[in-house]
Amino acid sequence: MELLPRDQIAFQRMLDTIRRNFERFGFLPVETPVMELSEVLLTKSGGETERQVYFAQSTGSLEKSAQSGERGVPEMALRFDLTVPLARYVAEHEHELAFPFRRYQMQRVYRGERQQRGRFREFYQCDIDVIGKDSLSVRYDAELPAAIYAVFSELDIGPFTIQLNNRKLLRGFFEAQGVADGGLQALVLREVDKLDKRGPDYVRETLTGPEFGLAADAVATILDFVAVRSSSHADALAKLAALGEGNEALREGVAELREVLELIRALGVPEKNYALNFSIARGLDYYTGTVYETTLDDFPQIGSICSGGRYEDLASHYTKSKLPGVGISIGLTRLFWQLQEAGLVSTADSSVQVLVTQMDDAHLPHCLAVANELRHGGLNTEVVMETSKLGKQFKYADRAGIRFVVVLGEDEIAKGTATVKDLRREDQFEVSRAELARTLRVELEQSRVMK
Amino acid sequence: MELLPRDQIAFQRMLDTIRRNFERFGFLPVETPVMELSEVLLTKSGGETERQVYFAQSTGSLEKSAQSGERGVPEMALRFDLTVPLARYVAEHEHELAFPFRRYQMQRVYRGERQQRGRFREFYQCDIDVIGKDSLSVRYDAELPAAIYAVFSELDIGPFTIQLNNRKLLRGFFEAQGVADGGLQALVLREVDKLDKRGPDYVRETLTGPEFGLAADAVATILDFVAVRSSSHADALAKLAALGEGNEALREGVAELREVLELIRALGVPEKNYALNFSIARGLDYYTGTVYETTLDDFPQIGSICSGGRYEDLASHYTKSKLPGVGISIGLTRLFWQLQEAGLVSTADSSVQVLVTQMDDAHLPHCLAVANELRHGGLNTEVVMETSKLGKQFKYADRAGIRFVVVLGEDEIAKGTATVKDLRREDQFEVSRAELARTLRVELEQSRVMK
Repeated sequence: MELLPRDQIAFQRMLDTIRRNFERFGFLPVETPVMELSEVLLTKSGGETERQVYFAQSTGSLEKSAQSGERGVPEMALRFDLTVPLARYVAEHEHELAFPFRRYQMQRVYRGERQQRGRFREFYQCDIDVIGKDSLSVRYDAELPAAIYAVFSELDIGPFTIQLNNRKLLRGFFEAQGVADGGLQALVLREVDKLDKRGPDYVRETLTGPEFGLAADAVATILDFVAVRSSSHADALAKLAALGEGNEALREGVAELREVLELIRALGVPEKNYALNFSIARGLDYYTGTVYETTLDDFPQIGSICSGGRYEDLASHYTKSKLPGVGISIGLTRLFWQLQEAGLVSTADSSVQVLVTQMDDAHLPHCLAVANELRHGGLNTEVVMETSKLGKQFKYADRAGIRFVVVLGEDEIAKGTATVKDLRREDQFEVSRAELARTLRVELEQSRVMK
Repeated sequence: MELLPRDQIAFQRMLDTIRRNFERFGFLPVETPVMELSEVLLTKSGGETERQVYFAQSTGSLEKSAQSGERGVPEMALRFDLTVPLARYVAEHEHELAFPFRRYQMQRVYRGERQQRGRFREFYQCDIDVIGKDSLSVRYDAELPAAIYAVFSELDIGPFTIQLNNRKLLRGFFEAQGVADGGLQALVLREVDKLDKRGPDYVRETLTGPEFGLAADAVATILDFVAVRSSSHADALAKLAALGEGNEALREGVAELREVLELIRALGVPEKNYALNFSIARGLDYYTGTVYETTLDDFPQIGSICSGGRYEDLASHYTKSKLPGVGISIGLTRLFWQLQEAGLVSTADSSVQVLVTQMDDAHLPHCLAVANELRHGGLNTEVVMETSKLGKQFKYADRAGIRFVVVLGEDEIAKGTATVKDLRREDQFEVSRAELARTLRVELEQSRVMK
């Protein structure tokens, strides 16, 4: 995805909003190199991801392997997510970091996917994770949804729901239905994942069929269970209570979810923005506790726009320390594309707020001095450097999405004023040069507040 | 270069400052993919750079080339600068862009350099360019130094000088010394470039020696000429006037430099921050007019921290349109490393401004609600989620560079207040919960202004 400047400005504003909110919640910035040692990247990746890795080789190394006829895997590869680099980073800097370590990372990742609409080989991920040493309280599992709520509220992309589930709860429930084996649970969950696409009849037949051989009433219980969604905070607590005492895993999962729900509320997230969804499993091996997905209420077909969960041990491949964590990730490039397709990205105003026009070469130094004052006053200002017709300069500002056009003619210069045309409000006024920057800043601030 | 969070915060602040100032001057954001077609990247690169390119191959493409035994250059490569991607971008989107096209781009680039201290294979470049269609007024050559002045002033890295020269002036001068051939001029300039390292005697001997065979008085004139530096605006104009009428190229170069100097001044750049330096040549083929280098006055050994110039045609390889431009680039990763080495990067305060402590699990929801208010009030706030000794929580804040520690004990909760410890001012005060966020914001704002 490569954007024209107007879209890039909108994209950059989303990046800024996400970062600002991540920082509001006390997450610290980390950036890692795009290239990692292949052996580091490939340790944790499964078959699918491994096939999508891009390898990197300098000219020298290409020539060397050509000469030697060697056919090994190249030494370096491009990251395909931000989790493996985080694991390597935390393991490498373990003794220099304070735990719980709260980091955000917003960088591009690379996957050699088949090219198709809305799938990108290079895309931004915006991740937050909290990593504990030896242990990490489940309370942190409530902070991530609160941060995500803040992000999506400010991004202003319509109503959304952060959906929660818990892998222990899932495990306990399935054990109670006679699906005790972890591998079998995984397979059942994979079938359940097809509910949306294939419908309940297909899933029921498969699970009672020869491959799984589950009892019809167990399958009915499973399908009822995975259909559970809560409609309010109280409803969520009631639905957890309705699960009864059950086995230990179920009890643990229920207790964790209950604590997370209470703290999400304490953090001020409105109850319409979070809900239980017992069908969410996320990755079959990696997550061990809370799991998250986030959907746009009016665009369920987009699927989850922000997902994650709790994991047992971040970096077992790279360190002996046990590093449990919880994380959540926004795939921003794909989200931006989807929002554009759904008409939810407004064509942004330009990052340029003021255009200083020019009608006479002799006045250029005066125009530049005024532009300098505007910039010092905090306004993003472009100056027309080559004289042209005023109409053409106005048309340019209009097309570029620049709101204020400043005219400094013979008259204005003599009087020490500027004429300002506000293209948004289709308004025109004259103001003294000394008041110019302050006046425009106030206008911008008022529009921001009124919006 | 991989940074720990404290350094990453300092680095991020530099990136933000650069971007803010680029936007102040009306430059629009562009980001391009890290991978370009190899044939695009290698079209423009010279021998040295070409040897440093990283190629990228997905697993599938690696396997394919292994099976076929093909040994061609891989299809994709990583960008080694931001100029070639800009050329490709402008050529590709030519009909969708408004000219003069003012873009900034701040992304990482990749070079397979020999690893050594202060040289990085992956580093940030922060570029601004103005691209014209068919023609571009020399006036734009004054805007770039003004933007760079704004950047480095705000970065607060000590006194610096933006040094200016002009390739036409150089060409005219050398022609007048009997060095008319462009290739020979390039070779002479390359020898002149060695002045700092090898000294004037070495250069004089080389230029009068068998290889160049220049007359001794011509060489003396050349060495006098390249030693010219201006000490003020008036001195710069005087030194240009002292060059006399000369030939056409010299006259053009002088006229351009004079106009650029006048407009730089009109843009409010103090005269101590720019100077003529007739020894600057920058790249022997690429630049055709104004050229820039920027040095730190107290650290000349660091060399140029920001360079660029005017070029005749950006994208002749990709389009028939003539696209003259002027650009300048900050190599931020190397600069950051150099500033750290020189002790000029202050250990930044954390991006976290407030730590809300916790002494009793029962008070956690209260603490979270207060944190929520602080975040809404625009303060970056971390909450201690697991109870521990208060002393330990203070120590953590101190080490992490968090300025304000908020204590919410039994007393404070009953009274509806918070106790705040300001670790910077070693001060402590109690404030009502309703006034907490505003009070801390005012304190931060005061420190910012006083700084």
